[in-house]
Amino acid sequence: MAQEGGFRAGLEDVVAGTSAICYLDGARGVLAYQGLDIHELARGASFEETCYLLWHGRLPDRAALGDLQSELAAARALPEPVLRLMRSLPASNGMDALRTLTSALAHTDADAGDASPKANYRKAVRLTGQIASLVATHGRLNAGGGPIQPDPALGHAANFLYMLTGDRPGALAARAFDVALVLHADHELSASTFAARVSAATLSDVHSAIVAAIGTLKGPLHGGANADVMRLLIELGEDATPERVEEAIRAKLARQVKIPGFGHRVYRTEDPRATHLRQMSRELGEKAGHPGWFRVSQQIERIVKDEKGLNANVDFYSASVYYTLGIPIDLYTPIFAVSRVAGWTAHVLEQYANNRLIRPRAEYIGPPYPQTFVPLDRR
Amino acid sequence: MAQEGGFRAGLEDVVAGTSAICYLDGARGVLAYQGLDIHELARGASFEETCYLLWHGRLPDRAALGDLQSELAAARALPEPVLRLMRSLPASNGMDALRTLTSALAHTDADAGDASPKANYRKAVRLTGQIASLVATHGRLNAGGGPIQPDPALGHAANFLYMLTGDRPGALAARAFDVALVLHADHELSASTFAARVSAATLSDVHSAIVAAIGTLKGPLHGGANADVMRLLIELGEDATPERVEEAIRAKLARQVKIPGFGHRVYRTEDPRATHLRQMSRELGEKAGHPGWFRVSQQIERIVKDEKGLNANVDFYSASVYYTLGIPIDLYTPIFAVSRVAGWTAHVLEQYANNRLIRPRAEYIGPPYPQTFVPLDRR
Repeated sequence: MAQEGGFRAGLEDVVAGTSAICYLDGARGVLAYQGLDIHELARGASFEETCYLLWHGRLPDRAALGDLQSELAAARALPEPVLRLMRSLPASNGMDALRTLTSALAHTDADAGDASPKANYRKAVRLTGQIASLVATHGRLNAGGGPIQPDPALGHAANFLYMLTGDRPGALAARAFDVALVLHADHELSASTFAARVSAATLSDVHSAIVAAIGTLKGPLHGGANADVMRLLIELGEDATPERVEEAIRAKLARQVKIPGFGHRVYRTEDPRATHLRQMSRELGEKAGHPGWFRVSQQIERIVKDEKGLNANVDFYSASVYYTLGIPIDLYTPIFAVSRVAGWTAHVLEQYANNRLIRPRAEYIGPPYPQTFVPLDRR
Repeated sequence: MAQEGGFRAGLEDVVAGTSAICYLDGARGVLAYQGLDIHELARGASFEETCYLLWHGRLPDRAALGDLQSELAAARALPEPVLRLMRSLPASNGMDALRTLTSALAHTDADAGDASPKANYRKAVRLTGQIASLVATHGRLNAGGGPIQPDPALGHAANFLYMLTGDRPGALAARAFDVALVLHADHELSASTFAARVSAATLSDVHSAIVAAIGTLKGPLHGGANADVMRLLIELGEDATPERVEEAIRAKLARQVKIPGFGHRVYRTEDPRATHLRQMSRELGEKAGHPGWFRVSQQIERIVKDEKGLNANVDFYSASVYYTLGIPIDLYTPIFAVSRVAGWTAHVLEQYANNRLIRPRAEYIGPPYPQTFVPLDRR
């Protein structure tokens, strides 16, 4: 379908380069970071261990993990000029704010102007800590609250929820969010990651590449579907009867309305990330006394699979997971960045290590060359 | 040379999509916007006419040009919050500042949140006006001066020089800078333009795409070579004897030191833009009583052509042109953005008009899947 005039539209299935970070087999439904299956990581690794894996190519031992936890925790306190800028921004799309504020972090970075591999690694760690704080604090301010100081005793996931809500999360909530971060941390050359690599391939700096990625993630064809899923769930209602769900979804499908959270360019099977988010959606819903979101979600999933043959993707069950965790819908895409910054930076470091400018060509379809130039006074 | 394992490293010569904007024939040394040869445009069109051509696919008549001039002039006054932010940024790389400030422009944009074609076109025009003001005003502040109010009676090029220097430029200087803007306005899928299209292809907004492009242009493999050329010229000195130039350049070549401003991934001939910049370098140098920069440049060009078979590219003579115009070296890359924003926005509008997500694949070269997961307490 994507074939036009000898090239693949949207570079679909075109290999743009090599990478050791993410193994993705869309036909078999396999996602693995550095060869480690996402199911094993979701069950057994924290987000911090996953970051280390993406950046170093292996899981950390206790000492290495402890060092990374300290470095991430140290990055949680935002620079004062960036906090001031956050307060001065007009209330706006969270991704606009994240893009501007992440760009501003470059101006105060301790390694600004140093493009050595060690400095670039420190920037990767620092940005991963800072972006979580940016999203949580911006979420607080948007909700009318004040910033919460980070708690160095908490892990990355739990601290994020604490800085966002002001409450230290319970074990299940912290673990659910941690798993969500692990699942979203990398996905090979997703559009945002590819944008980061295109930027880095000019030997631009880490901050520029991550800012490019944030602006790319902002697009509704990339991030954002889980927010649409949640709006759909709310439209139906957590207490919707099976008949009501059936009728509403089939009516939408009959009107060719796209149901968000289904299908993926790469996967021809179930998105392996959906498996874990589905399970967490059920567990969190039951624990919170709101099992309806999961029940309605599951019914939608069955109808869409039945009618369209489409599988739920990562966005479908993350909607009810985040909602049950008390995360505002506006933050669903920024939260994607909180996790994916680990993968973005891993890809940027990999790009620097074996760089070549990424500069494709376009097939020209404009007026035949040469056109006759007519001066202004004769037009 | 770029062939590795069945793909083209850096997507060299890979067609990523169609475009009607720029015709580029590297073998014959042809550059044309919408089929109009760059030599004709450099001789006969202003930057404003070129913007209209890139955005609309045809040159404007007087009425259409007048409207566009008014719209661009109206965009020159920067929003107060963005000016405040500019003053509060630590002294820093001009591209960092331009990236942060352009991102911040999104927050106050009159069409924020409106993604209709008309709103996107207005954003293209507005950003083209605003980015010139950002670069000129940031240059003023960095030099210790105060902002200069734009002069609506001046064209885009002349107004930029006025806002940067505080002096209304003479006819030759204004025309030279106008030609430089025309020559840099588009170059098909250069890395920054491609980054903008990758971002826009998720249906992210115009500002996000342009911010991605700015961060990509920042890399020394894309923008920046003309600053290195100027540093080389200053190292040699405007009064360097032919013997001194000969000795210094041959010594660098013998030590495998890259001489900046030569060669291009696409052109196998002379870069057609170099032709005009060479001529302006000579004219401006003579008029300013500083013919040495051109003389030394010309000698370097002959030696590098002779020794390496490489042709001067767009960056080689723009160095001495900008220097003679009194533009600080730090601004050479930001000035590239002042011009290229026209092409970036044209490509973004074209991407929206016939969109498909740009999402290639990577060839996996990491540890074989599946690796055995070892829990933390056994690592």
